[in-house]
Amino acid sequence: MNAKLQWLRNKMSSLDLQGFIITNPVNIRYLTNIDAEGILLITRKENIYITDSRYIEQVHSTLTLFDEIIVYDVHDVSKDDYENFFLFCENVGFEEYNISYAKYKEYIRKFKIYNFVETEYMIEKQRMIKDQEEISNIQKACEITDNCFEYILSYIKPGMTERQIANEIEEYYKQRSGGLAFDTIVASGENTSKPHAVPTNRKIQEKDIITIDMGCQVNGYCSDMTRTFFVGEVLEEVKPIYDLVLKNQKQTGEQYKDGISTRLIAKMVENDFKLYGYNLVHSLGHGVGMEIHEAPYISYKSDTQLKENMVVTNEPGIYLAGKFGVRIEDTVLITKFGCINLTKSGKDYIIIS
Amino acid sequence: MNAKLQWLRNKMSSLDLQGFIITNPVNIRYLTNIDAEGILLITRKENIYITDSRYIEQVHSTLTLFDEIIVYDVHDVSKDDYENFFLFCENVGFEEYNISYAKYKEYIRKFKIYNFVETEYMIEKQRMIKDQEEISNIQKACEITDNCFEYILSYIKPGMTERQIANEIEEYYKQRSGGLAFDTIVASGENTSKPHAVPTNRKIQEKDIITIDMGCQVNGYCSDMTRTFFVGEVLEEVKPIYDLVLKNQKQTGEQYKDGISTRLIAKMVENDFKLYGYNLVHSLGHGVGMEIHEAPYISYKSDTQLKENMVVTNEPGIYLAGKFGVRIEDTVLITKFGCINLTKSGKDYIIIS
Repeated sequence: MNAKLQWLRNKMSSLDLQGFIITNPVNIRYLTNIDAEGILLITRKENIYITDSRYIEQVHSTLTLFDEIIVYDVHDVSKDDYENFFLFCENVGFEEYNISYAKYKEYIRKFKIYNFVETEYMIEKQRMIKDQEEISNIQKACEITDNCFEYILSYIKPGMTERQIANEIEEYYKQRSGGLAFDTIVASGENTSKPHAVPTNRKIQEKDIITIDMGCQVNGYCSDMTRTFFVGEVLEEVKPIYDLVLKNQKQTGEQYKDGISTRLIAKMVENDFKLYGYNLVHSLGHGVGMEIHEAPYISYKSDTQLKENMVVTNEPGIYLAGKFGVRIEDTVLITKFGCINLTKSGKDYIIIS
Repeated sequence: MNAKLQWLRNKMSSLDLQGFIITNPVNIRYLTNIDAEGILLITRKENIYITDSRYIEQVHSTLTLFDEIIVYDVHDVSKDDYENFFLFCENVGFEEYNISYAKYKEYIRKFKIYNFVETEYMIEKQRMIKDQEEISNIQKACEITDNCFEYILSYIKPGMTERQIANEIEEYYKQRSGGLAFDTIVASGENTSKPHAVPTNRKIQEKDIITIDMGCQVNGYCSDMTRTFFVGEVLEEVKPIYDLVLKNQKQTGEQYKDGISTRLIAKMVENDFKLYGYNLVHSLGHGVGMEIHEAPYISYKSDTQLKENMVVTNEPGIYLAGKFGVRIEDTVLITKFGCINLTKSGKDYIIIS
C-alpha cells in the first residue's frame, strides 16, 4: 500500500474510524493517483474504488498491484455488496464539505451506515504539507512559469488583444507542461481594476498597465504567479500604488516562515494599506498544490500557522474601481527559517516597449 | 423582473415555498445571467444575490434595474440580516444535489430556517425545455462546430499529434465562439477505445481511425458533436462496427420526438448492440444547454419522456478495449413530429488523406 493510504489508515485508527468514504476527487487523486469519477472506500480490510465503465480501463492502467486497490464498476455492485462494505463498522468517516446533502442521505441508506462521522478536512489538512516529490513538481511548474513570463514580455506589442496574449501563454504551457493550472488572466488598462478579470478583445495601448496572473501544472501540481507591468512608461498615478503593493509583498516574504500566524501577517498588510486609504479585498495568499487554491488560506478571517513544507502564495493587491489595479504574486515554499520564492521573475518596474 | 425569475416565483407559490436558497451556479446564471461565486436568495419580497468583493463590480455590470436583484457583499451581511431574510417563511426550498452537507447544516443555523425543503431538481427540470433564444444560441454553436470540423478534416495530416489537432480546434473555437463547451477529445488508433480519451502525443498514422468529440459555446450555450473517421482507408475489421453504430444513430434520430420514452429508445439500441455481442457502455444521449451534460439523460437507467424544445445528443458508441472504438454524435432539437439535427456534418465513411 502506498505511504499516503498508510497514513490515512493510521489516522483513521487514531480517530476510531473503521471505515471512510472519500468523495473529493482531488483527495482521491492524492491518495491513489486515480483521476476519474468515482468514490474511494476504506473498509476494515480493503481499499475499494467504485467508478463506471467510462473510466475502468483508464483506472486499471493507473494502478499497480502495490496500490492494493480493488476497482469495481458501479453497475456490478449489488445491494448486498453495499451493505457488506462497512459491516461491523461502528464509525464511518465522510467528507462533509464534499458530499451533497442528497448523496449524504443516499449513502447512509445504501451502505447501512450506523454512525456517519464528519472528518473536518482531514485529508486537505494533510495535503498542506508537501513531500519532496510534491515540492519538486511545484518547483518545475514555477520554473516553466518564469520562463513563460520572460517569453511573453518579449512577445507583447501594442495592438495585440488581451485574448491573444492569454492564448500565447496557454499555448506555451501546453507545449512544455501538463497544462494550465487555471484560466490565465490578462487584464490591461482599466480592466486591471478587476481582480478576476477575464481576457477581452481590448487592445494593448501605449502607456497601458497590464496584469497577468498565470500558472501551469507539472504531474498535477500547480504554479501561480502574477506580475503587473507597463507599456512604455509607468504613469505617475500608478507609482505610489505599485510601490505600496511591492513593499508589502516584500515584507510578507520576510515574515513568512514556520510558526507564523496567517491572521497576523494578513492584518499587517491590511493595516498598512488602510494607512493609505486602501483595502486588502482578497486573501493575502493561499496554499498551492494539486489545486490552485487550497488550504491554508492566508487572510485575517482564518487563523492557522504556516508550517515547514507548506507551499503558499504571497499576493497583495490594490484595485481602484474603474481606474486600475496592481497585484504582485509569488508561489513560495515555507521553511523553518523563512520562505523561498519558487517563482523568481523580477518585481521592480517592468516596462516593455 | 425577468421571465425566468417570474416563473420561479410562480412555481414556488404553487409548492407553498415562501423562500428559496439557490446554490447551483448554473441555475443562478440561468435565472439572473450572473456568472460569479455566490448564492441567490428568493425571499418573500426580494431577490438577493450574496457574493464577495472579487465579483461585486462584475455582477453590477451584468445586472440592470429591470432584474430587481439586490446585491450584497458577504462581508456586509450581519447576523441579523441572515436571520431576517426568511423571517415568517414557513418553508424554504434548497437544492439538495448542489449543497454540501456542511453548508446545509450551516444555512439552517445561520438563516434560522424552520423547514428546509428539498426541491428535486426543480430548476434543472425547467432548464430542459429551451426557449427560442436558447435554441438559437445552441444552433449557432452547432454551426460553428460543423464549420470547425470541416476545417479540421482539411488540417489533419499523418505525423501530427492528437494534442496538436485538439489545440487547433480549440484555437478555432476561441476565435469564433464564446470558447470551448468541454475539453476536446482527439483519440487515434487504439486510443479510440477509451470513450473519455485525453489527447496524447501519439502521432496520426496511415490507416488510423480517429474519433473527435468537440463543442463550443455561444452566449453560454453549448454544442456537442462526435465523428469517427479514417486516414487513407477504412480497415475491414472496423466497417461492421461503424455500420452498426451508424445504423443505430440513424434509427435513434428517427425515434426521437415529443412523447417518446428515453428508456425505451436506449433499450432499443442496447438490444441491437447485444445481438452482435456488444454493449452500450454509456448513455445514448444527454441534454445540452448551459451545461454540456444536463437533464434529460437518455439511458435505460432513467425513464423520462422527451418533450418539444428539448435539445439532446444522439450518440451511440461501441468500444473494443485495446483495439478501437466508434462513436457518432449529433446535437438535436426535439419537436412534436421528430427531431432536427443541429449538427449537420456528414456521417458516411469520412476518409482523409
